[in-house]
Amino acid sequence: MGRWEPDARDRLVRAALDLFDEQGYENTAVAQIAERAGLTKSTYFRHFRDKREVLFSGQDELLELVTGGIAGASESAGALGAVEGALVAMAVTFTQDRWANGPRRLAVIAANDELRERDALKMAGFARTMKAGLLERGVPELDADVASELGVLALRRGYAQWLEAGGDFAEVARRALEEVRVAAAGLEGAE
Amino acid sequence: MGRWEPDARDRLVRAALDLFDEQGYENTAVAQIAERAGLTKSTYFRHFRDKREVLFSGQDELLELVTGGIAGASESAGALGAVEGALVAMAVTFTQDRWANGPRRLAVIAANDELRERDALKMAGFARTMKAGLLERGVPELDADVASELGVLALRRGYAQWLEAGGDFAEVARRALEEVRVAAAGLEGAE
Repeated sequence: MGRWEPDARDRLVRAALDLFDEQGYENTAVAQIAERAGLTKSTYFRHFRDKREVLFSGQDELLELVTGGIAGASESAGALGAVEGALVAMAVTFTQDRWANGPRRLAVIAANDELRERDALKMAGFARTMKAGLLERGVPELDADVASELGVLALRRGYAQWLEAGGDFAEVARRALEEVRVAAAGLEGAE
Repeated sequence: MGRWEPDARDRLVRAALDLFDEQGYENTAVAQIAERAGLTKSTYFRHFRDKREVLFSGQDELLELVTGGIAGASESAGALGAVEGALVAMAVTFTQDRWANGPRRLAVIAANDELRERDALKMAGFARTMKAGLLERGVPELDADVASELGVLALRRGYAQWLEAGGDFAEVARRALEEVRVAAAGLEGAE
């Protein structure tokens, strides 16, 4: 224990989800999560700042992928083309493990106010990062705002569709974005 | 004190913003807010659940206005027409007092992670409530999702524009929604 933990992070996430399932998020302590994973509390805190973060790990990496995906989109790509680049870039983190744990993770978050707040902030962070990347590309402010909100909506819908049906996240997210774009284009104005 | 406090809520909000300004949100206690407002702590807790909520008061009322505005939109209104109904219905709460306090309120929220989370949840709550109202009207799920996200974006942009320029909130929000709709319709798909 503590010497070499190549999959410590995944083990902690799985142990946490098991315990949240069995006894509820509120009733679970970090020490129990570490114990269940066969690791120490200090190993836990090397990976996650607090109990909550075990459900939101990897956000910094995701934000970097978003920024990189938008910056790396072809010069001719419009605002939504660049947003698609962000969604495709994120796909590397949507692993089999993540797919397997996803439904339980969503259920824990949905049942707890504090976790729903954290999740809302995470989504707002994606939108802000997408918008900043679009502005950097010279996209006008209003378009950047709209494209990033639609991008986060596509991310949310794509994630749910991916958890349901599996497959390649990049492909699922691409389809979700196109679906959202067509729906937005078809909305009539108020009279 | 404590007998008749017709404007207790407003006084507490103003006292809180003054103190947050002077000494920071983190360094301010509920007891100080009440004292500054010339009220008791128990009066404070009759109006707000905790320190944070003094910055987010009236959300339940706003959500009711959203629901009512969407349900009350004319039968022929499309998804965005109903969302416009929600924004217009919310306008009654955008008072002169709220306008005057708005910029300081936004500055306090922007400077604190916990408050930004709370604000993100508030926005997510508006989107969820708008979406539920649209589904109730028979709007297809995808359209309801897109229209409610665009509606919240218009609310956020309209609020910022209103704080800057003043005027009738309903009119400002209406314009913001139309601006967002036109931008969304003009976004090209990714190739």
